[in-house]
Amino acid sequence: MQTYPDIRSKRARYEDEYWMRMALDEARRGEGGTRPNPPVGCVIVKDGVPVVSAYHAFAGGAHAEAAALEAAVGLDLRDATLYVTLEPCSTHGRTPPCTEAILRSGIRRVVAACDDANPAHAGRGFNQLWEAGVEVVTGVCRSEALELLAPFFKFVNKARPYVTLKMAQSLDGGIADHAGQSKWITCPESREQVRALRRKADIVIVGAGTVVADDPSLLRDAEPIDGGLPGMRGVVDSSGSVSPSAKIFTDGHAAQTLYFTTEACPETRRRQVADTGARVVLLPFEPVSEAETEGAARPVALDALLDFLGAEGYLRVLCEGGAKLASSFVNGDLVDELLLFLAPIVLGRDSRRVFGAHPFDLPTAPRYRIESTVRYGDDVLIRALRNHGG
Amino acid sequence: MQTYPDIRSKRARYEDEYWMRMALDEARRGEGGTRPNPPVGCVIVKDGVPVVSAYHAFAGGAHAEAAALEAAVGLDLRDATLYVTLEPCSTHGRTPPCTEAILRSGIRRVVAACDDANPAHAGRGFNQLWEAGVEVVTGVCRSEALELLAPFFKFVNKARPYVTLKMAQSLDGGIADHAGQSKWITCPESREQVRALRRKADIVIVGAGTVVADDPSLLRDAEPIDGGLPGMRGVVDSSGSVSPSAKIFTDGHAAQTLYFTTEACPETRRRQVADTGARVVLLPFEPVSEAETEGAARPVALDALLDFLGAEGYLRVLCEGGAKLASSFVNGDLVDELLLFLAPIVLGRDSRRVFGAHPFDLPTAPRYRIESTVRYGDDVLIRALRNHGG
Repeated sequence: MQTYPDIRSKRARYEDEYWMRMALDEARRGEGGTRPNPPVGCVIVKDGVPVVSAYHAFAGGAHAEAAALEAAVGLDLRDATLYVTLEPCSTHGRTPPCTEAILRSGIRRVVAACDDANPAHAGRGFNQLWEAGVEVVTGVCRSEALELLAPFFKFVNKARPYVTLKMAQSLDGGIADHAGQSKWITCPESREQVRALRRKADIVIVGAGTVVADDPSLLRDAEPIDGGLPGMRGVVDSSGSVSPSAKIFTDGHAAQTLYFTTEACPETRRRQVADTGARVVLLPFEPVSEAETEGAARPVALDALLDFLGAEGYLRVLCEGGAKLASSFVNGDLVDELLLFLAPIVLGRDSRRVFGAHPFDLPTAPRYRIESTVRYGDDVLIRALRNHGG
Repeated sequence: MQTYPDIRSKRARYEDEYWMRMALDEARRGEGGTRPNPPVGCVIVKDGVPVVSAYHAFAGGAHAEAAALEAAVGLDLRDATLYVTLEPCSTHGRTPPCTEAILRSGIRRVVAACDDANPAHAGRGFNQLWEAGVEVVTGVCRSEALELLAPFFKFVNKARPYVTLKMAQSLDGGIADHAGQSKWITCPESREQVRALRRKADIVIVGAGTVVADDPSLLRDAEPIDGGLPGMRGVVDSSGSVSPSAKIFTDGHAAQTLYFTTEACPETRRRQVADTGARVVLLPFEPVSEAETEGAARPVALDALLDFLGAEGYLRVLCEGGAKLASSFVNGDLVDELLLFLAPIVLGRDSRRVFGAHPFDLPTAPRYRIESTVRYGDDVLIRALRNHGG
């Protein structure tokens, strides 16, 4: 196996990065539909032209490399390069190993973005190719690939989905004005970006209060794209305060709804929800003191919720609030990524805030790491990652 | 007068921009010390080399062009180019017109960043040079120059200083945690940047509460730089709650302190403050209803405060809070620029907020325009301008 700069000139590296970005774009098409597999993309380039590209669309379907090679049957690939965003698999799973397909194709150069996350497999696929005489280059566009694969890698290592918490607020931290008005603090471009985030997530989760107040649909697409799995939505409702007539139960897509609740939810309510076609998931209570709940219903244990989703193969959760659920995720240090849409407006006194449930002391308050700032229309999106090492 | 792209190639334009940026750096050295004059920089380039550079350091001192030409005496400048960040003056003020000095020098090419703000003078300097056979190019690095000159232009047009409101808060809009702890939410790099902001401001203003709670010095430098005017500090204390033993009165630089108060401040207190060497500025009350003050002291009229500072030649005010004063500035729509240092931390329930005094309705709340986002260490600085046209 070789790495830059030993074997390749700078110009060749730029070319590899160019094609790898195309493979990454392919991979992104599968996001939200491949669980429990990762989104992976592949491009085969021959004589400076991309002759075929493919992506992994759903578990059980062809892997990206296999799909690309299948589409390239009949072409002489001996002087072609195969770009793939993740190390090719070397074992029989639901599909035969991609390393075999690559060797059969005659391809003699493979460029990958990063290694397999599973320590038992990492490097094996590369070694098989290398030993068979294929030139292997890895680490091309690695950081972009890792951003795309972070949910899969967390799933492999911790058997839990990656948690993204989305917030939208004013410059002074208001998610609604003093009278509760929140439509719209952010601009249309930001809201379009939120829809894109939903498409990338396996499940969008909100608290009961949000469903009661806004009755959102949270559906990303009526139909899943290209055979991928459909987007799911979940509501966390410890005590059964959401009505079975809410949109998430009655819009004709109740099979895409998970209802997370506890024994505090009356059995009749659980039955009503199940009758809509939604799936009722009974979870334990969060182990909190009476003082913390202040007489309110004891909340759902979010650790158990994430364990459940991990066991079901979910890679990426998008939490869209409300304030109580967002606070619980932050308080439990269960958030991997904060996405803060900041609108250049001031809402002033008594405007509502996203984190209302738990006070933090400044010296020990959770610190994140700002990864990027991006402009969407009038707003700026701040992406902050939890620095679990720090 | 000529502009791009009529007369100059792209490459020549890039070269002009390169030297203009050097002139802008020169200009910045004068920021905070030139009032009521603008900070201006000048570079003279001959045969591709900057032979002399200069900046305007204080009102009454040499203008940047005059200082540069003075330093270049003896050089043959006929094939040199003079770069200046603002249109050269064409009238006799405290110093003779720079246009005359330029013509005397033999320079035959002048590149400027922008026109004079005063409609009575704008274009006059350029025309005098042009008519005398000097090639004049203007608008080079115009937006950078306008950022630097915005306070002067506001002063010329409205006889009031440019108001920058600085805030530092957590991702969820907290300026202190539930217990009032605020040291330190932001990182050392951000705090260094705040010191740089103070150096650029003519005066730093805080509310009485901030002085009572933190007893800050707010001094930027013990001595002004290069003969520029010293940095001033002001405290807004309607009713006389600040003790005459506060640092701003007793640190040996009381002459740099303005004490803004009203008739609600007892005469003895005003005398005590004046005795420290600070200047007492008696201002009217803000015309607010009894209901809005809720029994609290009636605040200082900030309109009158800005009129006073404008009359005294102040160009740039930096308001560093606290919450009440910041709210009053925002509520009166007196802020030109919001600088929000956002630290990647969550402070949660009951954390203190910057805008506590006035509620805004979402549809009519003040909207700003995000101009830039810059990273400082762990934090991000969001610069938002009030869109007075919008």
